[in-house]
Amino acid sequence: MTALHTTAMRLADGRRLVYYDDRPGAVRSTSDLRTLAPLGTRSELRHDPLQDEWVVMASHRQDRTHLPPADQCPLCPSGPGRLTEIPAGDYDVAVFENRFPSLSPDVGRCEVVCFTADHGASFAQLTPERLATVGAAWVDRIRILSRLPGVEYVFCFENRGEEIGVTLHHPHGQIYAYPFVPPRVRRELASAARWRAERGGCLFCAVLDRELADGARVVAATGGFAAFVPAAARWPFEVHIYPRRHVPDLPALDPDERAELLALQAEVLGRFDRLFDRPTPYVMSIAQAPVSTGRDLAHLRMEAFSVRRSAGKLKHLAGSESAAGTFISDVLPEHAAELLGRAARVDLAGRKGARNG
Amino acid sequence: MTALHTTAMRLADGRRLVYYDDRPGAVRSTSDLRTLAPLGTRSELRHDPLQDEWVVMASHRQDRTHLPPADQCPLCPSGPGRLTEIPAGDYDVAVFENRFPSLSPDVGRCEVVCFTADHGASFAQLTPERLATVGAAWVDRIRILSRLPGVEYVFCFENRGEEIGVTLHHPHGQIYAYPFVPPRVRRELASAARWRAERGGCLFCAVLDRELADGARVVAATGGFAAFVPAAARWPFEVHIYPRRHVPDLPALDPDERAELLALQAEVLGRFDRLFDRPTPYVMSIAQAPVSTGRDLAHLRMEAFSVRRSAGKLKHLAGSESAAGTFISDVLPEHAAELLGRAARVDLAGRKGARNG
Repeated sequence: MTALHTTAMRLADGRRLVYYDDRPGAVRSTSDLRTLAPLGTRSELRHDPLQDEWVVMASHRQDRTHLPPADQCPLCPSGPGRLTEIPAGDYDVAVFENRFPSLSPDVGRCEVVCFTADHGASFAQLTPERLATVGAAWVDRIRILSRLPGVEYVFCFENRGEEIGVTLHHPHGQIYAYPFVPPRVRRELASAARWRAERGGCLFCAVLDRELADGARVVAATGGFAAFVPAAARWPFEVHIYPRRHVPDLPALDPDERAELLALQAEVLGRFDRLFDRPTPYVMSIAQAPVSTGRDLAHLRMEAFSVRRSAGKLKHLAGSESAAGTFISDVLPEHAAELLGRAARVDLAGRKGARNG
Repeated sequence: MTALHTTAMRLADGRRLVYYDDRPGAVRSTSDLRTLAPLGTRSELRHDPLQDEWVVMASHRQDRTHLPPADQCPLCPSGPGRLTEIPAGDYDVAVFENRFPSLSPDVGRCEVVCFTADHGASFAQLTPERLATVGAAWVDRIRILSRLPGVEYVFCFENRGEEIGVTLHHPHGQIYAYPFVPPRVRRELASAARWRAERGGCLFCAVLDRELADGARVVAATGGFAAFVPAAARWPFEVHIYPRRHVPDLPALDPDERAELLALQAEVLGRFDRLFDRPTPYVMSIAQAPVSTGRDLAHLRMEAFSVRRSAGKLKHLAGSESAAGTFISDVLPEHAAELLGRAARVDLAGRKGARNG
């Protein structure tokens, strides 16, 4: 366990903010000098009896901050005459409660994770030192949020790009602490339970073994992890990273393993950006064990997918996907893996990648 | 059963086309004079072992016709010097096999249903006579496709608007004949089976009764049908239309009931277009019984939803929806129902609607 360098405070409306610094000694004592009305909004959970799923009603989000100009970015550090969500004049990583939460505090928790004070950077460009801080912050938040009453699943993810609805460009992720196990997680744990009952062992380990044996969809591998396009990928570009070791969640990795995983994720996201002549919109996320159920079945995984299917075209979800639930993919997973292999910065033999110097 | 006025033919590459006319006597004998290479593409079904769902690989669709100018629309009637997918110089409704099918013929079937020869029209603007023809064509296609070997579910839907990825603007729907029961249908039938085992009766009838008793989300009702925003709606604007009578699928309605349902659907879609100052992108679809399973549990329903959440904003699916499977809605269903009520062309008291003359 590496030491955490943290400073905790409250924002003007009472929301919690925690600085996670790369190194000890940073002074993050600036108070939030804004005048903010307290949050009075409430989310509502409604159960859909047909799909047997919870839907979150968060109508207070309809008027959330939407694509402000860069000089009004609320995730940049504060400066003279310009007060943002981050009171300090600089920071490494900052985590705070979302002012427009999908899950209001009576229902769950929504946190924002700023990866860097540099407005124009991206997760793929973070230094190894910063990736370690982001990983340590995720683990700390997962531990803290998992202890909150009623929280059943902690979900760390990043939405990047206007094409998937991002309203702030500053590099940041989010953490949702749901009061239930979300449907995709619930279904994969049900599949893992069936697999174990019928064939024994871990479904996810079996999937990883199959991908490594096949090899056609593997885009990168390290001593501890393998990144591949799943055989039945839904999205034009989709990569899953599995630890070779059977671990249920991010806190179960040791710091070296975590660094290896995050470096691999940054490498994959860097390749996403080299696929086309513009930044690639993506969702990256961490799939892991729920708080109080299914821990014996779960196997940690990082995912990333993009909705961009070619330089000028996006994959949209329409009737088959949204109304029937069946994905139609225009890009073969083997072809996506080949393109992602070519987009490597440096190939396995040490030569420069084919597409970008 | 009303009489069908149909003319069947083959297109130049062997695909089937059927004209469904409003009245008897139309001559639709023009041959397809184009030179078309035969379709040599194959879809591939891949099983996702985590979600236990089939994903359709259709990489031949990557280069499908994409937003051609109106004077090159392949769904308009053919004319001198301009040969389209519809050989006739005019038509009422035309159904043909998609040249770029998600499901190639060895796997399933994908048909295109042109609602009108009028390029600039919309489903909401169809006459009652034409709606009857569309309904009769759907029933005929459902019956024919249900008899094909391997087909387990026939799904009729319309995608409308570039915002959800539509590549052709001409008013048309689609029919997918899947070789499996799609996930959303499978899950709702599982819910209906649990409901029957635990509480008895039909889940869908119970949902309808609850919505009618509550009333806050009902947007329109007729003697045979009720249209409402579901209590746990996922989309900013979403309407489900249930028959009051327990029927499993569209063919089980009599022609008068079918006309009533389609008129109600056209009314709802017309209201969608009056919500904002521009045409509203939508997906409409028919949920009904699978071909060979679950018929005793199913209850016919039409759905329509839009991704537009305000005049200038769309609902995007990002981390919570796509990676965790949990929808966050920005628009309360009761508020959506109120706006859709105000968008009625003529309100229940016979006065003109508040928003549009």
